[in-house]
Amino acid sequence: MQINKVELADSFWDFYRDAVRTKMLPYQWRVINDEVPTPTVKSANPYLNNQPSHAIRNLRIAAGEVNGHFSGYRFQDSDVYKWLEAVAYVLEAGCDEELKAHADAVVALVGRAQATDGYLDTYIQIDHPEAKFKHVSMSHELYVMGHYIEAGVAYNHATGNQAALMIARKMADCLDHNFGPEAGKMHGYPGHPEIELALAKLADATGAERYYKLAAYMLDQRGKQPDNFFHQQSADRRETGSLDELDRQNAEPEDDYFQNDRPIRALKRGEGHAVRMVYLLTGMARVARHTHDAELLAKCAQIWRHITNRQMYITGGIGADPWHEGFGPDYYLPNSTAYCETCAACGMVFFTQQLLLEDPQAEYADLIERELYNGIISGMALDAEHFFYVNPLAVDPAEITADKGREHVLPERPSWLACACCPPNLARVVAALHHYIYTSNADTVYVQQFISSRAQFANGVTVAQVSALPWNGKTTLTVTAPKPSDFTLAIRVPYWCNGQLTVTIDGIPGKTQVDADGYCRISRSWDDTTKVNVEFAMAPRLVWANPRVAADVNKVAIQNGPIVYAAEEVDNGPRLATIAIDPYVPLRIGQQVPIAMGKKVPAIQLDAVRKQNSGKPFSSVKPVTESMELTLIPYFAWANRGVNEMTVWLNEKI
Amino acid sequence: MQINKVELADSFWDFYRDAVRTKMLPYQWRVINDEVPTPTVKSANPYLNNQPSHAIRNLRIAAGEVNGHFSGYRFQDSDVYKWLEAVAYVLEAGCDEELKAHADAVVALVGRAQATDGYLDTYIQIDHPEAKFKHVSMSHELYVMGHYIEAGVAYNHATGNQAALMIARKMADCLDHNFGPEAGKMHGYPGHPEIELALAKLADATGAERYYKLAAYMLDQRGKQPDNFFHQQSADRRETGSLDELDRQNAEPEDDYFQNDRPIRALKRGEGHAVRMVYLLTGMARVARHTHDAELLAKCAQIWRHITNRQMYITGGIGADPWHEGFGPDYYLPNSTAYCETCAACGMVFFTQQLLLEDPQAEYADLIERELYNGIISGMALDAEHFFYVNPLAVDPAEITADKGREHVLPERPSWLACACCPPNLARVVAALHHYIYTSNADTVYVQQFISSRAQFANGVTVAQVSALPWNGKTTLTVTAPKPSDFTLAIRVPYWCNGQLTVTIDGIPGKTQVDADGYCRISRSWDDTTKVNVEFAMAPRLVWANPRVAADVNKVAIQNGPIVYAAEEVDNGPRLATIAIDPYVPLRIGQQVPIAMGKKVPAIQLDAVRKQNSGKPFSSVKPVTESMELTLIPYFAWANRGVNEMTVWLNEKI
Repeated sequence: MQINKVELADSFWDFYRDAVRTKMLPYQWRVINDEVPTPTVKSANPYLNNQPSHAIRNLRIAAGEVNGHFSGYRFQDSDVYKWLEAVAYVLEAGCDEELKAHADAVVALVGRAQATDGYLDTYIQIDHPEAKFKHVSMSHELYVMGHYIEAGVAYNHATGNQAALMIARKMADCLDHNFGPEAGKMHGYPGHPEIELALAKLADATGAERYYKLAAYMLDQRGKQPDNFFHQQSADRRETGSLDELDRQNAEPEDDYFQNDRPIRALKRGEGHAVRMVYLLTGMARVARHTHDAELLAKCAQIWRHITNRQMYITGGIGADPWHEGFGPDYYLPNSTAYCETCAACGMVFFTQQLLLEDPQAEYADLIERELYNGIISGMALDAEHFFYVNPLAVDPAEITADKGREHVLPERPSWLACACCPPNLARVVAALHHYIYTSNADTVYVQQFISSRAQFANGVTVAQVSALPWNGKTTLTVTAPKPSDFTLAIRVPYWCNGQLTVTIDGIPGKTQVDADGYCRISRSWDDTTKVNVEFAMAPRLVWANPRVAADVNKVAIQNGPIVYAAEEVDNGPRLATIAIDPYVPLRIGQQVPIAMGKKVPAIQLDAVRKQNSGKPFSSVKPVTESMELTLIPYFAWANRGVNEMTVWLNEKI
Repeated sequence: MQINKVELADSFWDFYRDAVRTKMLPYQWRVINDEVPTPTVKSANPYLNNQPSHAIRNLRIAAGEVNGHFSGYRFQDSDVYKWLEAVAYVLEAGCDEELKAHADAVVALVGRAQATDGYLDTYIQIDHPEAKFKHVSMSHELYVMGHYIEAGVAYNHATGNQAALMIARKMADCLDHNFGPEAGKMHGYPGHPEIELALAKLADATGAERYYKLAAYMLDQRGKQPDNFFHQQSADRRETGSLDELDRQNAEPEDDYFQNDRPIRALKRGEGHAVRMVYLLTGMARVARHTHDAELLAKCAQIWRHITNRQMYITGGIGADPWHEGFGPDYYLPNSTAYCETCAACGMVFFTQQLLLEDPQAEYADLIERELYNGIISGMALDAEHFFYVNPLAVDPAEITADKGREHVLPERPSWLACACCPPNLARVVAALHHYIYTSNADTVYVQQFISSRAQFANGVTVAQVSALPWNGKTTLTVTAPKPSDFTLAIRVPYWCNGQLTVTIDGIPGKTQVDADGYCRISRSWDDTTKVNVEFAMAPRLVWANPRVAADVNKVAIQNGPIVYAAEEVDNGPRLATIAIDPYVPLRIGQQVPIAMGKKVPAIQLDAVRKQNSGKPFSSVKPVTESMELTLIPYFAWANRGVNEMTVWLNEKI
């Protein structure tokens, strides 16, 4: 049952999708065109120090239309492409003339900037032509071209723009010409994976098998000779003295930072830079699905399990190691120093979606839900104009300056980031949300996410969903079949309802058996209109982390449905670390708390205690406590009410 | 009752004092003479990367005896002077011909290196003569001369070497000639306090009041015009281009790093670089005592209280902020990122001793005891040849590389440190321990520390102490008065016995009243020999931190008498963070645990639980636990049995 189209109209997500369309993408457009005054951010982290984007200007210079030098990060081009890709998903959902006009112009500009051989990387073209393909470990050439290819495919799909696809093909052909096993080609692969998944998308869009072949080649080549990057750099250092800064950066990372220390089939866990890892895994899974490589698919699933069991925060955040923006040791998940890059949460969705498409297991969709409602949208302020790159789970603004381990942590979202990878990544996930609600195979329609929407299938069936999630467990699925159709409706039973659900089919109770894969199935001949009401038990509940996670021992978190809650100082006063809660205390859905821009969220309230200042540094008696009412808000909504303390994990009362 | 001499023979401290005399000082001698092969340390912290010391060679070059350039830190000279000072204290306790021969030679060398005007700083003299006194914020000129003055005074006192004192006077005269309120002199003060306390010592040794005057001037001038350093640097940047590296370093610190943001009388708490702060406070207290400046003394006492109540770890460690090697916000005392420089603990003893001499309060001696038995000797391995600069309260070696906040933390003591301030500082405290046991005034002898020793007083009285501390609360004080003498023996009642003590005088129970200042007094006419037996209640006990300390909420530490205990992986298996203890569990004095070099320490053992791996990242049920026996050893003895986990604070069982 092929999905033709999914339209989305959801009380929770419309806010985000409208914000992306009406505020974030227009704002990002102005940023990449240097039309936004540069705000300053006080941080030791250079990624947070703002500079004009210069991204469109770089393309203009490469196209020979204006003079000047390249400015920005070497991967600055990708800001434009991710913006274009997000616009494509917006246009899939309905037209926006202004965005489309800008996007068409961008496609045309990209076409003019592209070299005749298909190559396009403005950093290299403008200022370092001698270094073309000579620094692939850190140059990001294949990374930015990968992002263009993703955007071009999406934009062509959404609008039919042929030039968008043609540019992508020319790029891919250029890469195919330069990389591969044949003599005379480079036997290399990029430091930052991305091109692999992009080539797979392009192959799917065009039917050109050779793009899959090239992607598979780069994947299998990776890590076979870990000193490959080093040799390339050493060779090039003699040739291109102009790239000193690049060389210095190249010299730094260890091979595992690039997932380059061993062949991909020998990987076992999340290692190195988190975004690189999940982009690599997405490419691995896409290629393995296409080639029916069961071994590689099993490897992907095993790494997914390792990451989600041992290397992931409750918010879905990954990347505990701020040195490498990467994965830490197993169970190393400190809350106040977490990196949890918004991009990494996005990448985790891309990867997981591939596993879900291959092997529909509710746990994959559970994880996508965890990412969507927590670690991804936490990257955006409710004004849609301020963004987090780093998403910590505990912040004490007074402590940040004293702790070397928190130099990357900001207590509020800045309006833009010099390294602007995250905001457009968030935009493209939110804009593409309609791709994550349903999946299907020959005889089954899977309802993976509970988001109000309407799916049309190629056989004429429609599934209209009205869901009260994430605030309430009720969902109505109205299945309309113009002619009798035998198929299974497989409804994901979210982990958080603990198997407690009710189902009615046209008012008659249905079975609520949860199959081993986590779905509740209704198999029947659907005819005319059938109304399926599903209600998942949803109540605020305590969550304990695996005690192996040292940072969370003696602590609990609170979740309601998919939403992870957090305590903020503005609701609870300072010193959140002195608050303790009895694990048997009733949790009450509290009042709607106004957060920002007229937006309110339902609080959770409970009785708690605050450990009192003993007045002594050390004491041989237990601290005394006083009662308080604790108010929690959804984690994604934190840091919208000024700089203040926040924590997800709360002390258990002793 | 003036103290003439204190001789020490103590079962606990003899080990350390012998180690200092027979191993550490000879080893340091070889280090400063570049006779020790340079070991390599893997650390991002440049202070830990070893280089040959070059310290003696620098003096030789300055003396014109060999050619070459300066090498080492700008304050490298002080390594020699602190070594010399430690040797002086060793020689006070009894002769060591070899050390004395080396020390006499050092004094002679220093005399030859000293400029005719009294100036001596080899960094400036050898390679940067044009910068003399032009970078006092970061140059350490006055710091190294201060350390020489301390050493010269001590060495003269111990050995009668006149040259040692003469060099110190010439230096001080040079400073007096260049700094002061008079027109034509510099109205400045150094970035790193030290000269103030040194000038006070010199004034006491020589009776030359003008050294006190100069010290007082520098103290009172400090922070009055916080931009003073900046102006000096700016002016000099134009003059001395050769000092670029110095300028860069100068540009970095904020004024509060130097305690330069306000006048000293406006200081309120530990701020900035911890060693600078406690050296400054030591100078302030010394000068205030001499000038009977009640306001300044009260200020010192208030800052002492602030630091000990809100900015100090249970080990006596200070400096929670590794960025600045400095004090953090109040109650910011994270265990795994602590700086707790060994030098800062030494400096805290110097400062506290001044307060104790001025105003005998048991809490000051309590604090000295806390530093001596925990934060200071933890700086030295039991082989006396490996040293900690940084003394964290929790270490997980597997996590160090992932946490930016722990780049300064080493999981084992290296054999030397490029920035070698700490080992000789530890040596001079341990070597000078006999100065901390007793204090006195006209009619009272205070027993401040319980360390087996014999004190001779000017009036012929002797107090011979035999103490079983720190392992047992029993002490015998044998007072011998050759003729009847009326005086008070004031015995400190340590905080850890909670007022529980027994006293017998020649076998007859004495009163055990603890006065408001924390002493138990025996006032009588002492005649012939009187045996006072004191026993303080000592048993292992739990300690809670002030709940304001976020890092220690839901945690307890275990102390026995003055000794803070810690759990190590070698005794308890990995994942110390998963262990939890019931606060009502009996604590047993366990077996003697062999640590290193044949040395054993008594363990504390107790029943505990280990939270088990739940196999799930998040769970709605509490973690299950399994029983275990927990073994703790004294904190100071940790990291002598290989790289492993350690923690002082343990989870309370929920």
